[in-house]
Amino acid sequence: MSALVFVTPTWDATSWAEAMRKAAPGLDVSIWPDSGKAEDVTYACAWLPPPDVVKSFPNLKVIFSLGAGVDAILSDPTLPVGVPIVRVNDPDLTNRMSEYVVLHVLMHHRQQRRLDDAQAKGEWNSFPQHAAKDLSVGIMGLGVLGQDAARKLAMLGFNVRGWSRTKKDIPGVESFDAAGLDAFLSGTDILVSLLPATVDTDGILNTALFKKLSRRGPLGAPVIINAGRGRQQNEDDILACLEDSTLLAATLDVFHKEPLSTSSALWKHPRVTITPHAAADSEPATICSYVAEQIRKFEAGAPLENLVDTKRGY
Amino acid sequence: MSALVFVTPTWDATSWAEAMRKAAPGLDVSIWPDSGKAEDVTYACAWLPPPDVVKSFPNLKVIFSLGAGVDAILSDPTLPVGVPIVRVNDPDLTNRMSEYVVLHVLMHHRQQRRLDDAQAKGEWNSFPQHAAKDLSVGIMGLGVLGQDAARKLAMLGFNVRGWSRTKKDIPGVESFDAAGLDAFLSGTDILVSLLPATVDTDGILNTALFKKLSRRGPLGAPVIINAGRGRQQNEDDILACLEDSTLLAATLDVFHKEPLSTSSALWKHPRVTITPHAAADSEPATICSYVAEQIRKFEAGAPLENLVDTKRGY
Repeated sequence: MSALVFVTPTWDATSWAEAMRKAAPGLDVSIWPDSGKAEDVTYACAWLPPPDVVKSFPNLKVIFSLGAGVDAILSDPTLPVGVPIVRVNDPDLTNRMSEYVVLHVLMHHRQQRRLDDAQAKGEWNSFPQHAAKDLSVGIMGLGVLGQDAARKLAMLGFNVRGWSRTKKDIPGVESFDAAGLDAFLSGTDILVSLLPATVDTDGILNTALFKKLSRRGPLGAPVIINAGRGRQQNEDDILACLEDSTLLAATLDVFHKEPLSTSSALWKHPRVTITPHAAADSEPATICSYVAEQIRKFEAGAPLENLVDTKRGY
Repeated sequence: MSALVFVTPTWDATSWAEAMRKAAPGLDVSIWPDSGKAEDVTYACAWLPPPDVVKSFPNLKVIFSLGAGVDAILSDPTLPVGVPIVRVNDPDLTNRMSEYVVLHVLMHHRQQRRLDDAQAKGEWNSFPQHAAKDLSVGIMGLGVLGQDAARKLAMLGFNVRGWSRTKKDIPGVESFDAAGLDAFLSGTDILVSLLPATVDTDGILNTALFKKLSRRGPLGAPVIINAGRGRQQNEDDILACLEDSTLLAATLDVFHKEPLSTSSALWKHPRVTITPHAAADSEPATICSYVAEQIRKFEAGAPLENLVDTKRGY
């Protein structure tokens, strides 16, 4: 019998193990560190696994990443070479990320915080609203998540542009490649990062980049939304740029250290919206049936889907 | 030379008059009550005109309603019979209304107020998020505005149903007619009213209706969003239903009396979001070129577009 272990130190995987037992009744399912005999474990479902844990299972055949970001898995220096890593493909997760992106783009575009302030004061503060067609939303990262968000924002009437390592061809979305970063930024009023965490994207959201964003939009200054990875943002730069009006506002779902430290000045900044890395939760039942199906196919000799390119880093 | 008057007592129409002069240089444009010689005025652009004002222009050929709602015009007991009323057709306005509806549906769905509260306390409060596919949004009123909002919400993954006097055929949207109101409500988690104000819809958003909404949705209790007309809602009922958990929350853009009285308990209710009748502003330039074009065609003998059915009331 095959055995699968959940390695999810920041989550309680109890409900996940239950869902996996339902999805694959023939599988022996455990939760690290109560993993039984390490030699028996052939599959791992991981989210932010600590270093050295994956290598402790010497007979691992496949690692399944439970979220879109595989940076924590790849940064483990003792990660066994040659064990394939599969990113779970969850259309539900894509849809949830787009919900988040659309919600927060609209909150900035429609100046909801200004309306919230007025309501708190009991003020009927009617100011002109601009139309979506007057704003340009720029998405960094045009993978499955970025493309879906781009399509939905375009459908709502926004001008949408995207930036990715290689240029993508998405109807209605102006696309830029790595070399086109400055041109991409100069026409972006609201910047959305959905980038994977790689050495190339580390710290990319910094003052130098913020200063290249458009200042011609109807909001008067640019806005950033980061639902990618915390490592991509310089949090001191964000605070400084909000203070000197390089940025108008920020919505952050991810942080360098999570949970965000209670002492961070981001919590109380009136133009920062913080969400607790909740932009796109994975649903146990959906993910576990995907993993179970992949294991069935793999054991029947079929190739694995959604393999992570470990060199590229995503 | 033809003359046009703006009758917009709750707005300063200065920028509108300017836009109209640009769009129709041959037109003599004035703003009521500084309307010059009443006998000369042949066209009126109206928004919430006070009673008896329209009849003071004896040679009026067409009345243009500057917003989608024509109830204030039609409720004037001295409105001249037989003067055609044209509702300005502004695709931009439709798009703005959908921005508003999508924003506020997503704010409730993603429990943004709960996240706002957590942020205010500096708390990293991660709770499970549901997917759009787990919620049903019911739209009352399936005219141009309702249909566009329905289409966009469906595209974001919500289950969408619509209710209108006569059943509509919109792909992906379950449609109900007047007689199907109870069935419509029983499957609705988030209710959006985009109804026109007519005698049939007066006070329709009341306790009896709220009690018929679904309580099986993931939010635990139903939510209402009114971006139609204030006359449709019983504001005391809304407050009472929020207190006894018949309703979870409400977003209101319209009120019985606007601006909403500073003494209204709605302002301070933690589960009420108030916006100042700003869901879908009309843009002077867009609207004025539409009116100018209609006048040109009308004077060349062509029939008027978008005529209001004064019997039906919209």
